[in-house]
Formats: sequence, structure tokens, C-alpha cells
Amino acid sequence: MKKIKMGMIGGGLGAFIGDAHRRASRICNDFEMVGGVFDADFSKSKEFAKQEGLDLKRCYKTVELMIKGELALPASERIQAVSIVTPNYLHFPFAKMLMENRFHVMCEKPMTMTVEEAVELEKLVKKHKVTFALTHTYTGYPMIRQMREIIAGGALGTIQRVDAQYYQGWVNSIIHGAGSRITGVWRFDPEKSGASSCMGDIGVHAFNLIEYTTGLEIKQVLSDLNHIKEGFKLDLDGTVMLRFDKGLKGVIRSCQVATGEENALTIAVYGSKASLKWGQENPNYLYMLSDSDPVKVLKPAHGYNSEFAEISHTMPCGHPEGIYEAVANIYKGMAKSIRGEKFKPGEFPTVHDGVRGMKFIHAVVNSNKKGNTWVRL
Amino acid sequence: MKKIKMGMIGGGLGAFIGDAHRRASRICNDFEMVGGVFDADFSKSKEFAKQEGLDLKRCYKTVELMIKGELALPASERIQAVSIVTPNYLHFPFAKMLMENRFHVMCEKPMTMTVEEAVELEKLVKKHKVTFALTHTYTGYPMIRQMREIIAGGALGTIQRVDAQYYQGWVNSIIHGAGSRITGVWRFDPEKSGASSCMGDIGVHAFNLIEYTTGLEIKQVLSDLNHIKEGFKLDLDGTVMLRFDKGLKGVIRSCQVATGEENALTIAVYGSKASLKWGQENPNYLYMLSDSDPVKVLKPAHGYNSEFAEISHTMPCGHPEGIYEAVANIYKGMAKSIRGEKFKPGEFPTVHDGVRGMKFIHAVVNSNKKGNTWVRL
Amino acid sequence: MKKIKMGMIGGGLGAFIGDAHRRASRICNDFEMVGGVFDADFSKSKEFAKQEGLDLKRCYKTVELMIKGELALPASERIQAVSIVTPNYLHFPFAKMLMENRFHVMCEKPMTMTVEEAVELEKLVKKHKVTFALTHTYTGYPMIRQMREIIAGGALGTIQRVDAQYYQGWVNSIIHGAGSRITGVWRFDPEKSGASSCMGDIGVHAFNLIEYTTGLEIKQVLSDLNHIKEGFKLDLDGTVMLRFDKGLKGVIRSCQVATGEENALTIAVYGSKASLKWGQENPNYLYMLSDSDPVKVLKPAHGYNSEFAEISHTMPCGHPEGIYEAVANIYKGMAKSIRGEKFKPGEFPTVHDGVRGMKFIHAVVNSNKKGNTWVRL
Amino acid sequence: MKKIKMGMIGGGLGAFIGDAHRRASRICNDFEMVGGVFDADFSKSKEFAKQEGLDLKRCYKTVELMIKGELALPASERIQAVSIVTPNYLHFPFAKMLMENRFHVMCEKPMTMTVEEAVELEKLVKKHKVTFALTHTYTGYPMIRQMREIIAGGALGTIQRVDAQYYQGWVNSIIHGAGSRITGVWRFDPEKSGASSCMGDIGVHAFNLIEYTTGLEIKQVLSDLNHIKEGFKLDLDGTVMLRFDKGLKGVIRSCQVATGEENALTIAVYGSKASLKWGQENPNYLYMLSDSDPVKVLKPAHGYNSEFAEISHTMPCGHPEGIYEAVANIYKGMAKSIRGEKFKPGEFPTVHDGVRGMKFIHAVVNSNKKGNTWVRL
Repeated sequence: MKKIKMGMIGGGLGAFIGDAHRRASRICNDFEMVGGVFDADFSKSKEFAKQEGLDLKRCYKTVELMIKGELALPASERIQAVSIVTPNYLHFPFAKMLMENRFHVMCEKPMTMTVEEAVELEKLVKKHKVTFALTHTYTGYPMIRQMREIIAGGALGTIQRVDAQYYQGWVNSIIHGAGSRITGVWRFDPEKSGASSCMGDIGVHAFNLIEYTTGLEIKQVLSDLNHIKEGFKLDLDGTVMLRFDKGLKGVIRSCQVATGEENALTIAVYGSKASLKWGQENPNYLYMLSDSDPVKVLKPAHGYNSEFAEISHTMPCGHPEGIYEAVANIYKGMAKSIRGEKFKPGEFPTVHDGVRGMKFIHAVVNSNKKGNTWVRL
Repeated sequence: MKKIKMGMIGGGLGAFIGDAHRRASRICNDFEMVGGVFDADFSKSKEFAKQEGLDLKRCYKTVELMIKGELALPASERIQAVSIVTPNYLHFPFAKMLMENRFHVMCEKPMTMTVEEAVELEKLVKKHKVTFALTHTYTGYPMIRQMREIIAGGALGTIQRVDAQYYQGWVNSIIHGAGSRITGVWRFDPEKSGASSCMGDIGVHAFNLIEYTTGLEIKQVLSDLNHIKEGFKLDLDGTVMLRFDKGLKGVIRSCQVATGEENALTIAVYGSKASLKWGQENPNYLYMLSDSDPVKVLKPAHGYNSEFAEISHTMPCGHPEGIYEAVANIYKGMAKSIRGEKFKPGEFPTVHDGVRGMKFIHAVVNSNKKGNTWVRL
Repeated sequence: MKKIKMGMIGGGLGAFIGDAHRRASRICNDFEMVGGVFDADFSKSKEFAKQEGLDLKRCYKTVELMIKGELALPASERIQAVSIVTPNYLHFPFAKMLMENRFHVMCEKPMTMTVEEAVELEKLVKKHKVTFALTHTYTGYPMIRQMREIIAGGALGTIQRVDAQYYQGWVNSIIHGAGSRITGVWRFDPEKSGASSCMGDIGVHAFNLIEYTTGLEIKQVLSDLNHIKEGFKLDLDGTVMLRFDKGLKGVIRSCQVATGEENALTIAVYGSKASLKWGQENPNYLYMLSDSDPVKVLKPAHGYNSEFAEISHTMPCGHPEGIYEAVANIYKGMAKSIRGEKFKPGEFPTVHDGVRGMKFIHAVVNSNKKGNTWVRL
Repeated sequence: MKKIKMGMIGGGLGAFIGDAHRRASRICNDFEMVGGVFDADFSKSKEFAKQEGLDLKRCYKTVELMIKGELALPASERIQAVSIVTPNYLHFPFAKMLMENRFHVMCEKPMTMTVEEAVELEKLVKKHKVTFALTHTYTGYPMIRQMREIIAGGALGTIQRVDAQYYQGWVNSIIHGAGSRITGVWRFDPEKSGASSCMGDIGVHAFNLIEYTTGLEIKQVLSDLNHIKEGFKLDLDGTVMLRFDKGLKGVIRSCQVATGEENALTIAVYGSKASLKWGQENPNYLYMLSDSDPVKVLKPAHGYNSEFAEISHTMPCGHPEGIYEAVANIYKGMAKSIRGEKFKPGEFPTVHDGVRGMKFIHAVVNSNKKGNTWVRL
């Protein structure tokens, strides 16, 4: 099958997340990167394009020029989808511009800076009938998809408690290290990163996983955030109480200064009949608990899994896949959508997931500002 | 060495917690149970005493009679310490009565029904110069003691986040099962159990472990509790936001309907230099994390542990000890106190820990009642 | 119920294994230690007896005197059972003497020095109708008993492979440390320890667990042993190939210089339908594997376990018990036998298990001597 | 950089291992598959080529035609390297033919059917100065490379014991299932698969990991193999005793009917000072044990790792990579070699590793045939 021609904004020399996108897109085998705007510094952008073996004519100086240049090409050669892997504040203007010119978009999260921008993107997706995917990476893991299917099937009974955690430690060495690296890091600058660091960067993944796996909407939040260091402009830590409909409650805990934690995203959903637990660092293990049976450990590539989990894992059992394969599953879903093939809800995160995420981040920040009171999403 | 003569109130036929106390006291080898009031039903009490091979004259009908009977005996034969393993509402009156008659007391938690009662017990301990120990069981584990020592030694730097969890699932089968067992269970009756089920029974252990291991005081709480089932009088689930001094924040999560969870008490303390994590179900493992080194797994019976951890484990490394040995360590500490031997702060939980616990429980309940606002302890 | 009066040979001041026996016997609550010969040095023996609060008249100078002294007492006061916790070469003469005088015996393993002695003890048990128990400690764990019951029930289908391991590291520091501690350690002296160090001390536990859990007899062994250090008289490491009936094969791996290993005894039994895996360092977890279902994690105190597993665990689920409780279960089984109560085969290891163990040790040593050829048990 | 043009033999529609090779080669980003002989059935081969979007002219009917066709192309367009992913008996003739025509070869293992063939390939590699890589997949994992570097650095002291295991269960369902699938499976046909099933397919990986991580050569083996089912022509299970120089001993255990095991390849190397343990199913964890320190858990993407481990992992810490990334690391190493770039010994398995593997397999089979005697490699 012909590959989908892909462009990229950001992600040049030394960029981690752009490289991850490219690897994932190659694993899923439906995309071929042909051009982009890889760096604000055009010479660096070209250096990168050269290193990747790209046609240098398709390494553009600006997004506007890329759109113009690509539209000038015959449809069969033209970039069809663009990955936006820039700092947060650039997601919205570039996504908008691209969709208005009928390019499909793969966008890093958090999707936008404000809820209003998020809602506008949602409208644009509808209007222009393009595919928009958001990299809520962890929804690409087979066992998260299995978790979603098990819950949708009702095996947990009534859900009674939800608990998600996202702990990392990497910011710790920055804020306590020698030299003031804080000012040089775009993630800690509200102008470029948005209203929140900890909740915007990682808490929102925990939020997304809850809604993704349970199919339920979080209705209200009450948060307590912690900036940890005097003068630090954004939160690096926080606890968020959650309220759903029908009396269901839960909690999200998130921290960027949990020293020594690597990428400890976990989710536990407790139902009246059974429960499910999953952790990102060992993503191939899904634990199912009940009051009467032994704990069951579900793993990918087994007949007991749902079809959705199984199409999300390509190796035989016991051969661990990881984060790249999870992102590849999201690219795969996006490819199906672009090609007009059938796909399941949940194969890739949509602009609606982006809107929900922005509502979450802003509600959390507002609750904290208002002295820890409940705020509706 | 002569054993300390011990009495027991409650804990007769079929009682789980009384049996645990007796086993633990035999493991530590400093106590000998010689009598008690084992059941409100005197005939059952006697049946139990017979089964245990006790002198039936020392199986008393009431606590008053026990006190009278024992005081009539020569000091060398007399019960010196009494374990109170009754439902919660009886802890206070019996503990008071016993201490006023100069008996040492080992009391189950939560210590009392109200903060006022707790404070009164604290005064009585001082006044009568008796030893009072509270079964905050988990402080008896060697690796919890090691955690306390490591933190006291400053190896974690400034503490930045505290997160404790206590999840169980056993109430789930009761509230959802056939038949209305709720009314028959004293734990769910506010008159007998106190102001809270989930926080009073298990959340308070998480609270205690935080203060025990960090040496810090929790200053304020904001809670959201969940009764889960309509008409249920007490909380079965809750999240408690914590505030300490100097900007430190944290969270306690507790649930009695986390289906399939057994006794999932965990604690994580994150510092600026390093972090520590421990879980009760695998109590012989203490994880030390940092940003720069491999994760270290500390286990009992190694030279790298503190003396306090080492006196709390009697087997060579690799031979797992469990919950009985933890309780035995608390009995051992109490024995040292009764005998006037030297002991470390933290060898057994004192009446002051009981006061703190009651303050915690009531502050949590109040915060929830007041619409989830901050309440001082 | 009246406690069984127990004596002890060996296990005095500073002894680890004697202390473990006493703690275990107190946990199970059926025994009361009243006297013994605790040390070859009588003054140390008395010092220990004093410390334990024993009647000093029952602290004897020799085993002969103990037997004489106790037989002179009225039956109701007399020691009924004796724990032998001496170095290996003394097990046989003392056990023999005791049984000939109608004392029940709890004996440490390896039971004897030679197969011939083992067979003689077996005859004496029959002749004198006493209870003889061997501390194959690990058969006291609830999940090992559950494993035995599951296999006996046929759930594994035909067994296809058996793999047991016992790795420790403690000898490593002795043989490589400063100073020649080797000569001072009785375990490394063939005159006191027997034909083998690694296989006699720990390999035999792996052997015993295989026969205990599967109910099958090992028919032949082929071994390769390693003394590790030039001039060292006994094996510190070895691999033993196993042959059972009907083409079943397996392996035992054992090592005392596996640096950093604590007490890593594991067993895996693979059947045509399902498999079971267990490890001593996390004794409350039993893993059941199959080709078609999620891995099942069985834990104590659940309704899905057999009755035999359940009577072997006294705490509610999630409260870990350990090695002392395992030994206590063996004492409990012995107590039932002494009292003439009903007990299940497997509640305590018998003299026959001791005979099997001695045959194993000697067959392994012989196979190695003969240039790694098959030797029948 | 220009990608290396790659061809493939085998690996067409529905093939698992061919797909894995392609994904891995795309992840490492140095290869581009442009043609091949994907299936013995030419129409199926073409169907696959079409699906992959390849130029159909480069989908050849036979390997001979492929060689001829490619040699006719200008060097800049020509296939440079060929992946052989056929059944075992075809590895040798195709690899020989390709190398004689100066194509680089990536070959699946076991490399050949006989030791003689293996040795001949080794000569051809030298003679034609091509790059030959063997997919000893697991040497691509970062923590295996870290293990190799730690041992090379001497941190383990003198190695005292080596223990490797490779247990799978998948053959179990084949031999016990309804219908005689055995005859239809090429792996179980000695003509196509070689002298051994279990040792040839998986045991040899354990062998390879031992030599790879320790840098030591296994000198002699003594094996006991098990065909499990009457009439089955090849081994499905076996234990192999190992002897190295200087008294070092070890064991390889391998089984294809270990019901419920997925891909349980583990290796433990015990030294006089420290030990290392690793398991394939959780490949991002490397355990370092010693007698005096806490267990250390090493993970990828940390400064404490060697450079070799770090170039083998591309994500930040806590983002698990898996089996594809391991194979990609081997492709990356091969690419460096083809391009004449510098690479470390161990970046990809060479033809010499293939020779060692064939010697191992045949020595194991011979030891078993000769009644379990020692056989030199």
C-alpha cells in the first residue's frame, strides 16, 4: 500500500519527541516523512533534513512556506499529514493553519494554551473534515485498550473508585541543581507552556487515561497544587480530587519532583465486582482483581484478549513491546482514518480528547487559585 | 527472665485480633497470658479460657471484677499489663479504669471515640506513670523502622511530597452481598465504631506511618469521603489532602471497597535528594530511589541497616518474617518500657500517637462535612 | 488444652536455629519448653536456661542425664518431645537414644550422616511408635501445601518438567574473606557435617520440595559438584539432573556462593495442562500458568484455596506471614500426631522424608565421584 | 544519510519473523527494503511485495534470479544487504550464494544445519570481506550490553557460577492438541530444522548470552534431553551442564513445553564480589547483587550506565523499549559495519557466534546420544 506522506513541524536535531514520532511512524509502516519545518533556525533545519536523507526542497523555512510549497505539488506527491512537535504555544496556530489548508494533523499534547483555542480546533476539524490526532501516547498500549474493553463489557460492575498517578522526578535535578536552569526551560515559562507544568504536561495524561479506560466523564475537580520552590511560576506537584456522576469519586496525583521516579503513570479502577490495575513502566501487564478469585495477570498476544488489544501487539507473547509501539498504534489509527478505513473509537485520541484535556488543566488550576474548591469541567 | 503477666479484654473464641495479639506476645517471649475477660458472654469467656489452658479463676466476668481480683493477688502473681481488643467504643472506659488501677495497657486502635477521650487518656498515662501502647502494627516492621532512621539521618534532603495509601476490598462483599449484613457489623455502627469507618479503621494507619517515618506533623487536612452506598452511615472511601509546615503537601488515599485489594498499605516519601517507598504486603522490601543511582532494594538482616531495623528482625536474610513479628516487636518495646529498660522512641506507639490519630480522624470527618475545606489538626 | 512439654538439645545462647524452633513452637501454641541440654558447655547451658526463665533442675549436663532425669518425673510433668538442633553428626545418636526411651523427636535436617543411620531411625520410629518430625521447614508454607493439593488434584495434567533451585551467597564471604574461617565452621568439616555441604544443607530442601509437592519419587540423579576453592573439602555448588518414572526429567540447582542471593529456594512444576511456580522469599505467592488463561496469582486466606492451605495460615488475606509461621505449622502437625489427633499426610515431614533425603545426598555425591554418571536413589 | 538498500529472503505474507526484521530495520532508520524473494510461491511473494508498496520488478522468483537481477543494476540502486528469514536448512546455501556475490547478510539463527557449514560460512565472510550478522536478538538489549560491560570491567570478581534458562510453553499446545500438527511444522522435522528443536531454537540463545555477557568460552557440555512425546523426533526439553576453564561450572535449562511460560529467557552470573541477573520479559531491569549492599536495580537511560548501554536505548528513562528496539540495535550495528563506521565488538553477532552456536547444539546432542557424558565444544 502506498505510504501516507508526512511532514513535521519541530523535531529537528537533538529533539527527543520528534524522533519518537518518526520511529513510531516507521514502525507502523503507513507513513513516510518527506519534508517539514524542523527548526526555527533554518540552517539547523536543513542540516537535519540532510541527515535524514530528505529532498532539501521540502525542508521549508516557515510553516506558511511549507503549506504553500506543498499545495503547489501534485496531490499524489503532496504532504498529507503533519506532525506538530513544537512547544505548546505553537500547537494552536500551526494546527489551525494546517487544517484550514486541509492537512491532517498529528499534534503533541497539551493541545492548546486555552480551552477556547481547543474548542476552536474542534470546530475546524468538523468543518474541514480532516483527521486530527493527539498524542495521548499511553492509549496506544495494548493492555490499556484491553482495560477499556473489559470495562466497556461490564466486568467490573459499578465503578466505586478511580485512582491515577503520574510521578516523575526529572525536574528535581533542574530546580535543585547548580545554576538557574529554570529560566531557560520553555516548559516552565507560562507564555510558552501554558497555565500549568505538572498538570499540563503529565497530569493530563492521567486524566485522559481515566476517561479513556472507563468511558466516564469527570465532572468536577478540587485541586491543591504545589510550586515546590519559591518564585517558581508553575506547579510541579499536585493532588486533584475527582467527582463523576452517581457519587463516584476518585483522585489524580501528579508530581515532577518525585525524586527517582522515572515515568510512573499508573491507573487503578475499582468496581463492585472486579478491579483493574496497570502501570506504564511495565505496560505489558494488566492486573485483574476480585474478591473471590486469584489475581489474574493479563498480557498481550493471548487469545483471552479482545480483538482491539490483539491488533495493538504484533509480537508473540513474551516478547515485550514498548513505548514506540504504543505511539505506532496511534499513528496506525490515524492512518486508517486518513485512508477512510474503518477504525474503532479509541484507536487514536481525537480533538475532542484535546478539548477535555484543556478543560481539565484549567479547572485544576482554577480550583487551586480559588482556595481549593470544586470546579466544574 | 521472668515473663510479664498479661490479661486480655475481648479476644475470645473466634476473635481474630485477640489471637494475633497472643501469638505476637508469645513470639517476643516477654509475656505470658494468665487471665482476662474474653467475652461479654461469661460462659463463652470461660470456654475460651479452658481451651487456652488458663486457670479458670482468672477468667473474670467483668473488667471491674478482674481489676479487683488481680489487685487481691500478691504483686508477683498479679496481671501487670492488659491488652484491650474490644470494639472501639470500649477502649476508653476500660483503658481509663485499668490505668487508674496502675495496670499497663496495650490498646487496639482507633484509641478512643473522640479527641477529648484521647486527650484524657494521655493525661492518665502521665499521672499514673504506666506504659500505654497502641497497636499501630505497621510501625513494628523492620523496614519501616529503617525508613524512619534513614529519614531522620537526612539522606532524603528536604521532603517534597508524601503519598500514603491504604486500600482494602473486604467491605465490598458485605455491602453488595445477599442479605443486609451492614446492620450486624459493629464497625459500621457509629455508636460502637466512632465517627468514621474507612478513615478510623485504616486511614489512620496511613496517617500514623507518615508521621512515624518522617517525624513531621500533619497540620491541616482537606478531605472528600464517600459512603459508597445510599443510607450507609459511615465513609468507606476517601481522599485526604495534607499540609505540613514549610509548604510540604501530600495525600492519603484510603478505601475499604477497593475490590480485590487485600491490605494494600503503602507509603512513599519523596525528598530533594532521594526517596523511599514501602508496601505492607511485601514488608521486607524498602526501595530507595534517587536521580543518579540505580534503585536500591533494602532488606532486613543486612549490615547496611540501622541497629533499630536489625533488632526488629530475628532471622537471617532471605527468611521472610511477617505481620506477627511486626506486632511482636511492638510487644517487645512495651515490655522494655514496663521493665524499665532502655528503649528507642518509636519502639512502640504511645498514647500520644493515639491522640494524633483521633485528631486526624475527626479533622478528616469535619473537612468532609464542611464541604471539603481545610481543617487544622 | 494442656501444652506438650518440650525439651531441646542444642540451641543455647546465640544459636539461631534453636531460637527459631522455640519461636515457632510458641506461635503454634501447643508446646511449652521446660528443659534440655542447650550447650555442650554446661555453664553456658545453665546461663541460657536462666535467661529463658526455666527451672534450672531441668537444665541437664548431658542427654543421658536428661533422659534419666525426666523419666524419673511423673508422666504428667515429663518432657514428651525433644527438639534436636545440634550439628549434623549428633542427630543420629541423640534421636536414637531418645526414641528408645519413648520420647517424640523433632530433628533438624539433614537427618543423619549416612543412609544406613537414616534407615535405622525409620525402624526405630516404627518399633517405638513415637512421633518423629524433620524440619523440612518449607513444607510448612501454606502455598506449598496448596501446590501439593493442586497437583494431587490433577490440575496440571501429566508433569513434563521439574526445576528447583536453592541459591544462597553467605558462604562466599567466608571463603573469600580475610582469615581462614573455613576450618572453624563445623558445616565445612565432613566429620561433623556429612558427605556434602551444598547438597546436604540446602540442595536436600529442593529435593524434598519436589517430592512433597509432586508426590513423585526421584529415581536417579546425575550430578556435577563444585568445591569452588582449592582444598575445600565439600561441595559449595552443584547441578543435579533428575530422572523420575515415565520419562519425566528435571533439575536441581544449588549453590552456597551465589553472591548476594539470600535464601532463593524456588520450585517450578510444568504439566501438560498447567504449571505452578513458587519462591521462598515471597512465600505467600503461588503462580499458576497455562497456555490459554491469564497467569493466576494465588495467595493465602482465600476461599479458593484448599482446606490444607487454609489451616496453615491464620491471618486475613494481605497480612504476610513468614518463616516462623511455616515452622509453627510443622510443630502444629507434630502436636496433632503426639496427641493422637487426626492429621493430613504432609502436615509434618516424617522419618521417611529423612531417609529419602539421605539417599538423595549420597546419590548426588556418588554421581559426582564416579565422573558424572547416573546413580539410583 | 542514504539508507542501505535491503533485500529479504522469506518473510512474506503472515510471516512473523520477517515482519520483525522489517520493523526493526525501520526503527534503526539505516535500511530500506527494496526487494527480495518473499515466498517459495511466487504469486504469494508478489502479493506481499504489492502490499508493501515495493517495485514489483525487484520481487524475484528465486534467490539466483535476485542476485542476477540486482547485480545488473547500478551499484547505487543495488541491494547491499539481504536478510535471510527462511527455515533453517536454507540459511547455509542462500548465505553462501549471497556472500560469494558480495552481498552483506543478516541471517536468522541457528545459522546452519551442521558445524561444517558454519565453519565454511566463517571462511566465506573472511574471504569476501562482507558483513555477516546473526540475529542473536537478545544481545541487542541495552541492559544485556550493560551486563557485558560490567563483567568486562571486573566488578564481579572471579565468576563462580553461571545459570541460564530459556523456557517457553508454546509447543505444548501443539503436541497435546487435537490433530497431528507435528508433521506439518518444519521446526520439528530434522531435515529442515536440524539436529535439535529445543536446543537449536532457544537453548542456543541462552548459550550465546552466556558467552556474550561473560566473555568466557564454554569448553564442555553434558546434556540430558527429553523428547517428551513418544515418536517425537527432536528434543523439546533439556538440561545442559557446562564447564568453562579454571573450574567454573554452570547450567543451561531449556524447555519448549513449559506450559504457560511465554519467553522466559533469563541469565544469572555469580561472581566472588557481585552478581548480575537479567530476564528477557522485563528487559529494562538489570539486578546487581552483593553480600554487603542493597540490591541495585539498573535501568536504561541513566548516567550510571556504560556508553554502550546508552547508545542502545533512545527514550528517556521510564519509557520502556522492547524486542523490536533490541533487533533494531543489531541492525544498527550491522549498518555501521557495512558503512565502514567504527563499532564495538558486540554491536551485532557475527558469523563466529554462529559457529560457536552450532558447536554448542551438536555437542549437546552428542552428549545426550552418548549416554550423558561430557563432550568438548
